[in-house]
Amino acid sequence: MADKKAVTAITSMDEDFAKWYTDIVKKAELIEYTSVKGCMAIRPYGYAIWENIQHILDGMFKETGHENVCMPMFIPESLLEKEKDHVEGFAPECAWVTYGGSEKLEERLCVRPTSETLFCEHYKNVVHSYRDLPKLYNQWVNVVRWEKTTRPFLRSREFLWQEGHTIHATAEEAVEETERMLNVYAQFCEESLAIPVVKGRKTESDKFAGAVATYAIEALMHDGKALQAGTSHYFGDGFAKAFDIQYANKDNQLVYPHQTSWGMTTRLIGAIIMTHGDDNGLALPPAVAPIQAVIVPIAQHKEGVLEKAAELRDRLKKAGLRVKLDDSENSPGWKFAEYEMKGVPVRIEIGPKDIENDQCVMVTRHNGEKSFVKLDELETAAADKLKAVHDGLYQKALENRERRTYSCTSMDEIVKVLNEKGDGFVKAMWCGEEACEDEIKEKTGVGSRCIPFEQEQLSDKCVCCGKPAKHMVYWGKAY
Amino acid sequence: MADKKAVTAITSMDEDFAKWYTDIVKKAELIEYTSVKGCMAIRPYGYAIWENIQHILDGMFKETGHENVCMPMFIPESLLEKEKDHVEGFAPECAWVTYGGSEKLEERLCVRPTSETLFCEHYKNVVHSYRDLPKLYNQWVNVVRWEKTTRPFLRSREFLWQEGHTIHATAEEAVEETERMLNVYAQFCEESLAIPVVKGRKTESDKFAGAVATYAIEALMHDGKALQAGTSHYFGDGFAKAFDIQYANKDNQLVYPHQTSWGMTTRLIGAIIMTHGDDNGLALPPAVAPIQAVIVPIAQHKEGVLEKAAELRDRLKKAGLRVKLDDSENSPGWKFAEYEMKGVPVRIEIGPKDIENDQCVMVTRHNGEKSFVKLDELETAAADKLKAVHDGLYQKALENRERRTYSCTSMDEIVKVLNEKGDGFVKAMWCGEEACEDEIKEKTGVGSRCIPFEQEQLSDKCVCCGKPAKHMVYWGKAY
Repeated sequence: MADKKAVTAITSMDEDFAKWYTDIVKKAELIEYTSVKGCMAIRPYGYAIWENIQHILDGMFKETGHENVCMPMFIPESLLEKEKDHVEGFAPECAWVTYGGSEKLEERLCVRPTSETLFCEHYKNVVHSYRDLPKLYNQWVNVVRWEKTTRPFLRSREFLWQEGHTIHATAEEAVEETERMLNVYAQFCEESLAIPVVKGRKTESDKFAGAVATYAIEALMHDGKALQAGTSHYFGDGFAKAFDIQYANKDNQLVYPHQTSWGMTTRLIGAIIMTHGDDNGLALPPAVAPIQAVIVPIAQHKEGVLEKAAELRDRLKKAGLRVKLDDSENSPGWKFAEYEMKGVPVRIEIGPKDIENDQCVMVTRHNGEKSFVKLDELETAAADKLKAVHDGLYQKALENRERRTYSCTSMDEIVKVLNEKGDGFVKAMWCGEEACEDEIKEKTGVGSRCIPFEQEQLSDKCVCCGKPAKHMVYWGKAY
Repeated sequence: MADKKAVTAITSMDEDFAKWYTDIVKKAELIEYTSVKGCMAIRPYGYAIWENIQHILDGMFKETGHENVCMPMFIPESLLEKEKDHVEGFAPECAWVTYGGSEKLEERLCVRPTSETLFCEHYKNVVHSYRDLPKLYNQWVNVVRWEKTTRPFLRSREFLWQEGHTIHATAEEAVEETERMLNVYAQFCEESLAIPVVKGRKTESDKFAGAVATYAIEALMHDGKALQAGTSHYFGDGFAKAFDIQYANKDNQLVYPHQTSWGMTTRLIGAIIMTHGDDNGLALPPAVAPIQAVIVPIAQHKEGVLEKAAELRDRLKKAGLRVKLDDSENSPGWKFAEYEMKGVPVRIEIGPKDIENDQCVMVTRHNGEKSFVKLDELETAAADKLKAVHDGLYQKALENRERRTYSCTSMDEIVKVLNEKGDGFVKAMWCGEEACEDEIKEKTGVGSRCIPFEQEQLSDKCVCCGKPAKHMVYWGKAY
């Protein structure tokens, strides 16, 4: 074939999950490596997924009253140092700018790893009265964290994200906001990415640097490892005090406001790959798929086939689908493999026989199911199939998570079940002491992922020390 | 009034144009200064203008076949150095990262001032055959240039922009692309920003570092200074040779491809301010105005006023307008001044008397014209007013430019006309020699802005040396 590319097989996920993952990001043309260590070039197909994610999330943020802004990408060292816990957490992984042109800077600048300090400085400038509150801000930007080991999307030195930063008159309002945005994140993961998540609170040792409380949504990947898909932090008035932000309340007294921040990143694309992908490649949830349906003409040299295929494309486009007609000279078999690799939710085949019978073939990516569809039902059938793909992906992911979620009441049981059944979420009781948290991780290999909002009383004792348990915790190995 | 802010007057533009400009960016709440020298915080109202610009431009890029990608923000020094002219042009204004955490980097990294080098590296990885061409890529990112003197939007150390980077099989295709995108830029400025522009080519001395030819659109600001609103560069195969990018053509010979790049930045917001603003504040072109129409209720405590105002808002929202109802307790007079400052194109007033007469008042921001509109014609009248504002702004800007464009046939005449009439575009003939270009700038104060595509033969001699003229050039003082 004229423009045939080799569709070579990817490593099987059972054989080597890490290799399977990097095969997919390359072969599905999501990214390309660069000479900038730990940084990737996001290619059109990968970036289009991110654009769809942005579009949906941004709409949800705006519906909940948030406005977009843009703070500088540099943080002067003295500004970063204003909140003690915060700088301790982030300074070790900052990239530092020390020269502007040929001149050495008087004060070095860190490339933002996150922007709490910049937002605090800004809030100090613009918040003076209770009438100025709340400010519900968000920004879509790039950030840098100097990681030692990196993987595309999952852990890269530069990544894209959104960071919400809000400031409120009262602690109650700020806590509500923290929870609201965690719920927005969970809803987005489940309804747009078809990824089931556990909502919960991070333990003290796992909190964001400078936060009073960190909430997170945790997802289980196909290999049984956990991935933190989004976080929402409640800061109390700690940052306000460190940055001396005060406002005049209705009684004209100067008081400290309360803050939150929350973020989601390009690692969501990694989560999509590792939740839904299989040995044939990516499988994309329809809401964020750059191509929702691909039309593959069969025997396209025969009269009328390409015309009919183009007609179907135009009809589906008009119905609001993101649709592509591949009329290249590659063989249908090559095309099938290509769009399976790229995770296109629905494939539509149309050939001379189909045209004769006034029908086409629809195949859903996640389960390979094939059905004949009458052409006058094209639009509704395609919409139904997209819904079926979303639901199918979600169910499959949920079943995987449930199969790999183990309730344990002792350390021995944790070790045993992980050995026998492989990695997964372990639900186990905990006394709340950091020493036990550390010991559990050391002896079983799984760390605390979160204290889920939906608690269960598996026993009344900490699996580690045997003292009274305070919480049921999800434990797991993490990306 | 409960939540009244002081609407203090801004400096008059005739008194001090620079001060007038910075008053507007602050009072219209477009930006706030930060402790990061030369970098600004873009506030919600300013960022919303940028989002509208992005939305329209991105649509135009996609319609012309471009795809979005995202390259890293860092460029290793050795990569930047690969193209000689390019590094000479940009190295002096690079911000350099020298430390990652506490470790000194083996090779320092520049924060991208522009991304040709990264795109070249990427193209070398993904372009192998004529079948891989063209690649029509764009990215929406932040860049950094270490400027000495900075001004919000116009010249900041960090700014937001889009950079298109394309690679083609032939020089012809690349030249066509360079021109196509310049035309897209001009169309956008005129149809969406209501800013008339001159299209032309930059002189050799004013070319982008590494380009064969640089094209630009130039606009004239209210004070008679020129502003480069967008550039489009043709690279020939210079970068391809420097980066050793080759592809196999149809005859299976390895040949060099041809490249372009083109960009527009947040300085467009500065152009909008300085083209359309007046002593009452901003005046926004409707296509990018965050609020296209504001509804101000009159005597809002009277029965039925707020209900009717809300009804109008809902109708206009349904008609697709970005509309705001200000039902705060501030006085109507305060609101009038506030939304004039913010440049909202159309103000709608509705009070008890209007309701009685089944009408409302519409006032257009750019000329203060007031008219009564029957409520059953609300939607069409609002749409007509928005169109009238766009056309009015464009006409006003065009007239300003024409009034301030002077044809001169000698150096003395240039000096005289600028002295008498103030800054503006000077059209004058030029022999094409850099020495004359420099001398004209030195002696008259105006530099070459561009060699316009629409040439006129003002005389046959260079205004400087008197030798045969090659081009008619637009000269001006530049932002």
